[in-house]
Amino acid sequence: MSKMKVLVTGSSGQIGRGFLRHFGHAYDLRLTYNTHPFDAPGHEVAQMDLTDYGSVLKATQGVEAVVHLGADSRGQQPWETVLPNNIVGTYNAMEAAREAGVRRFVYASSNHAAGFALNEGIPLSADAPDRPDSLYGVGKIFGEALGRFYHDKHGLEVICLRIGACHGDDFWASQQAIVQRAIDHRGGYPYDLATYLAIWISPRDMSQLIHCALSADCDWGVFYGISDNDPAAFDLSETQRALGYKPQDNVQDLFDLPIEEL
Amino acid sequence: MSKMKVLVTGSSGQIGRGFLRHFGHAYDLRLTYNTHPFDAPGHEVAQMDLTDYGSVLKATQGVEAVVHLGADSRGQQPWETVLPNNIVGTYNAMEAAREAGVRRFVYASSNHAAGFALNEGIPLSADAPDRPDSLYGVGKIFGEALGRFYHDKHGLEVICLRIGACHGDDFWASQQAIVQRAIDHRGGYPYDLATYLAIWISPRDMSQLIHCALSADCDWGVFYGISDNDPAAFDLSETQRALGYKPQDNVQDLFDLPIEEL
Repeated sequence: MSKMKVLVTGSSGQIGRGFLRHFGHAYDLRLTYNTHPFDAPGHEVAQMDLTDYGSVLKATQGVEAVVHLGADSRGQQPWETVLPNNIVGTYNAMEAAREAGVRRFVYASSNHAAGFALNEGIPLSADAPDRPDSLYGVGKIFGEALGRFYHDKHGLEVICLRIGACHGDDFWASQQAIVQRAIDHRGGYPYDLATYLAIWISPRDMSQLIHCALSADCDWGVFYGISDNDPAAFDLSETQRALGYKPQDNVQDLFDLPIEEL
Repeated sequence: MSKMKVLVTGSSGQIGRGFLRHFGHAYDLRLTYNTHPFDAPGHEVAQMDLTDYGSVLKATQGVEAVVHLGADSRGQQPWETVLPNNIVGTYNAMEAAREAGVRRFVYASSNHAAGFALNEGIPLSADAPDRPDSLYGVGKIFGEALGRFYHDKHGLEVICLRIGACHGDDFWASQQAIVQRAIDHRGGYPYDLATYLAIWISPRDMSQLIHCALSADCDWGVFYGISDNDPAAFDLSETQRALGYKPQDNVQDLFDLPIEEL
């Protein structure tokens, strides 16, 4: 049986590299870069500029699915970078998918689409109202709405993943790195340390979640994606039911004290 | 008592002209134009280009509220016009409101944020999921999400109105014009004639709705806005409760036959 041909945008980021490492064997990937080429034995590597529609369309030809990770992923970016990289980039990726006849589009949305709800009690249910905590989060809601439209209007299968905090295995293995990252990263966000740790997702759980989104019998949805954390920021029951996601990690396992007491 | 100073963007469109005619006496308005100046005795008229942040900021100085009607209001526009006029224009208007210290921002959202839900049964409740029927509708969801963020982050009071079909008094007075407009306009939309008529809002109801949004004791919300139609596309109970809106017209009154039989 031939492997599914999948375009991964933003493939040189943490999530893309994790997916290649953990699930690359299961797919025939086209990995993109903008300015810095890299090697990925057994896969295709292609240049693409997300802000240039022609470039995106060219990179999208001949694939069955797109995993759209490409964006400026820093959460407190100004409009000047959110607009081209996240808003225009997502439109280009989705429109190119439609024009190229792609079947499924997996969209990397974010917990930041609901950040202002997180300080009102967790876990947050899957149908909680949108409460973006940044222009980055506003851009993610734009992308989800665009996905809903492309699904309803054009029949594109669109799976949106509201991804928690995903960093490399080096972070995941180090209490100190996680806590420091959490402290650094929370600047400007409305939630406390325990809530921030409650949104973490390990690289292997993140990779499994993308695999689920590519293969599940589901043609539309917005799903939260974190590890099996205790406490958990989001109620994962819909993600587990509709996508078959079975997280294997728990951020609490990295700490000797209960997270609430850190 | 001095009148509230209000900037109205897009004031030369149908909704802006109706508001000036029906409620202009109650406000000290700053009306904007981009290329075609006009007269509005008793009010201020200023040039503004929504796609130019400096121009928008200048026009926003010294007002207490903004009514943001300015956009490309045709519902089936391509990305090339939705992006500058509706997405960038709305960001410019809201960011300028924040920078200029404006208290309240009334945002002209649209029924097109939920168009694909309309063919699944009406009336639609206020908390129905977003189902945009066009890139225009996707842009409106972007604007609502931006408003939610500016409210949570910066304390801006933001009232979003999901406005139905609002045309001039000449349309409202003519069965034939309404039906022809409905038939012309439905091209590309997913709903039938009765559903389309069920989203109409008369100029005087629309003007009252903006007045309610400017004056109500409410600091955030997304509200549907149509006349007291029979059948009605949207459940107006939240709009009536939170904003005090009391629609006076009913599209059915214009027809001798029940709308379902037209």
